[in-house]
Amino acid sequence: MIMKIAVLPGDGIGPEIIAQARRVLDVLKSDGLKIELEEAPIGGAGYDAYGQPYPEVTQKLAREADAVLLGAVGGPQYDNLDRPLRPERGLLAIRKDLNLFANLRPAILYPELANASTLKPEVVSGLDIMIVRELTGDIYFGQPRGIRVNDKGEREGFNTMLYSESEIRRIAHVAFGIAQKRQKKLCSVDKANVLETTEFWKEIFIDVAKEYPDVELSHMYVDNAAMQLVRNPKQFDVMVTGNIFGDILSDEASMLTGSIGMLPSASLDANNKGLYEPSHGSAPDIAGKNLANPLATILSTAMMLRYTFGQEEAAVRIENAVKTVLKQGYRTGDIFEEGCEKVSCSGMGDAVVAAL
Amino acid sequence: MIMKIAVLPGDGIGPEIIAQARRVLDVLKSDGLKIELEEAPIGGAGYDAYGQPYPEVTQKLAREADAVLLGAVGGPQYDNLDRPLRPERGLLAIRKDLNLFANLRPAILYPELANASTLKPEVVSGLDIMIVRELTGDIYFGQPRGIRVNDKGEREGFNTMLYSESEIRRIAHVAFGIAQKRQKKLCSVDKANVLETTEFWKEIFIDVAKEYPDVELSHMYVDNAAMQLVRNPKQFDVMVTGNIFGDILSDEASMLTGSIGMLPSASLDANNKGLYEPSHGSAPDIAGKNLANPLATILSTAMMLRYTFGQEEAAVRIENAVKTVLKQGYRTGDIFEEGCEKVSCSGMGDAVVAAL
Ligand SMILES: CC(C)[C@H](C(=O)O)[C@@H](O)C(=O)O
Ligand SMILES: CC(C)[C@H](C(=O)O)[C@@H](O)C(=O)O
Repeated sequence: MIMKIAVLPGDGIGPEIIAQARRVLDVLKSDGLKIELEEAPIGGAGYDAYGQPYPEVTQKLAREADAVLLGAVGGPQYDNLDRPLRPERGLLAIRKDLNLFANLRPAILYPELANASTLKPEVVSGLDIMIVRELTGDIYFGQPRGIRVNDKGEREGFNTMLYSESEIRRIAHVAFGIAQKRQKKLCSVDKANVLETTEFWKEIFIDVAKEYPDVELSHMYVDNAAMQLVRNPKQFDVMVTGNIFGDILSDEASMLTGSIGMLPSASLDANNKGLYEPSHGSAPDIAGKNLANPLATILSTAMMLRYTFGQEEAAVRIENAVKTVLKQGYRTGDIFEEGCEKVSCSGMGDAVVAAL
Repeated sequence: MIMKIAVLPGDGIGPEIIAQARRVLDVLKSDGLKIELEEAPIGGAGYDAYGQPYPEVTQKLAREADAVLLGAVGGPQYDNLDRPLRPERGLLAIRKDLNLFANLRPAILYPELANASTLKPEVVSGLDIMIVRELTGDIYFGQPRGIRVNDKGEREGFNTMLYSESEIRRIAHVAFGIAQKRQKKLCSVDKANVLETTEFWKEIFIDVAKEYPDVELSHMYVDNAAMQLVRNPKQFDVMVTGNIFGDILSDEASMLTGSIGMLPSASLDANNKGLYEPSHGSAPDIAGKNLANPLATILSTAMMLRYTFGQEEAAVRIENAVKTVLKQGYRTGDIFEEGCEKVSCSGMGDAVVAAL
């Protein structure tokens, strides 16, 4: 099998972190994996090259590939573009275009980086949460939407939160499947006391749960979930929720670790085709300075090998190499602490390649 | 001036914490403040007495009063009631009925309780954030909403996020006004990169800002705000946002203190009529056991005196009494730590009354 990977470096630190991830893939390639990589622009880079954040060349490449590896999108130079041309539109468009409805965002605390957290060690040590966020529905894409003049002649902004039964069922199956492979605890987050959309969500989850008797399903209101992540995050194994609540809670959860530069993500379709990207953003302030942390992107390639290509062994090999470099004391600026060795983005790439 | 206060104890620990707040008001009364208190049921208690979570007697009382003091609503015995009869419907109904669009939720860390936080002391010491949450608009009340069968014959749940210009303007003025009296920093939280409703929100805030040149307005995406509250909460002075984001972020912020039993809240209309309640819930597990922390409710009466009645002196007197009992080492179970004196709900009331 040839693994066709579309590589979309994007903006800001995107190109530098992607370059290090490519070096990792090159090692696996030279060790026998059949990997084919091709690059195209997305986000601001897409706009610069073709006037569109998700240009046709990129669409074509992404559709034909088995998996997509993405750096990051966005930058201040694009802030004043019209809404449909902005970098993040490229991200939303590729998610929808490829039907990547299941976003997996692990929040893992690496023991070596425990100090980076703003939370007390006893609260976060050993933290390992998987957040499953629905990614192609909800108020992100719901119609109607816009800014209009209402009956009273007043302007108003409006959006539609919306989930159909099939959309909820398919994300539920993904979430239950993941919980089965972990601690078998699934917490579905909703606001069923106020929003009918999520009342319906909860109903469908309770129904799907019948097919997974080995998984313990619980329900939590989103406001309480935001509290519980701070109060006692280790109570969670897998958390599943809709697009907008997932956007908020997955960022909150990742920040509990204090080292968001370490956190990968996967966005999957129904056939495990996926887009893989670091959870952090494009960090325009340090772009081009060889300072960025490439580990989240490198760990994203591990997720890719696991989820899209079923190459568990190669995935674990990458993850172990990352653990090794942390043990060896290599740190980029974002996770640096006294007594460790500060390395550049490419220096971290060197260390990972060596550890492989 | 006679201050007419509607007292709605509600469910769970509501009655016991309200009883202690009443004792505090009794002290002020005997010292000369003209206070008139009358009680009525709300939430589950409303349902038990009149078959409605916001019964007519309660509506009448609340409308005629200058301010409302509320305990808490909700309990497991009401979980299977039809949606319109559930306790939290009473809360949503009274907010809308009285037009209480401005919800003020301070997140303050009391130095004596610094250990209660799950965050490191240096991250939260001195924390003092005011969250201003719009409370009568947004997806909470937007129409259309429900669960329907769509064109494809499939069921779907849907809700409408909606903000009109006047709704945004009036909450903006409240938020800017509060920031003016504090550190003059206002952070408006939106998801303007995805949701037109909040793009419009941002536009109006930028416009209103012209009237408050002394306040520094910033904007932050809601996902980033959820992260920044964990990473560095002390960067915030006043945070303002819509109903649903405010629901999530205010709970997250209050949990940063680790002592949500200490946090009051106010919900105001355009004329400073207000509903005051503790930020915590009805805690059915400890209800009726004289274990609850009455301080958030007592501090809610202080907010009432300040915001509705303009009695700054009386408000500060209550707040100082609370600080005194903390210094004296009195603690209810929720904030107890070794070396302090554990007291009951009424025991804490005794201490506050003595300190007054
Ligand atoms: C950039 C933005 C549109 C995006 C989102 O809200 O989904 C981002 O926050 C994310 O979580 O990937
Ligand atoms: C009980 C519920 C309807 C309510 C809300 O969502 O507003 C509560 O969470 C709150 O914040 O006061």
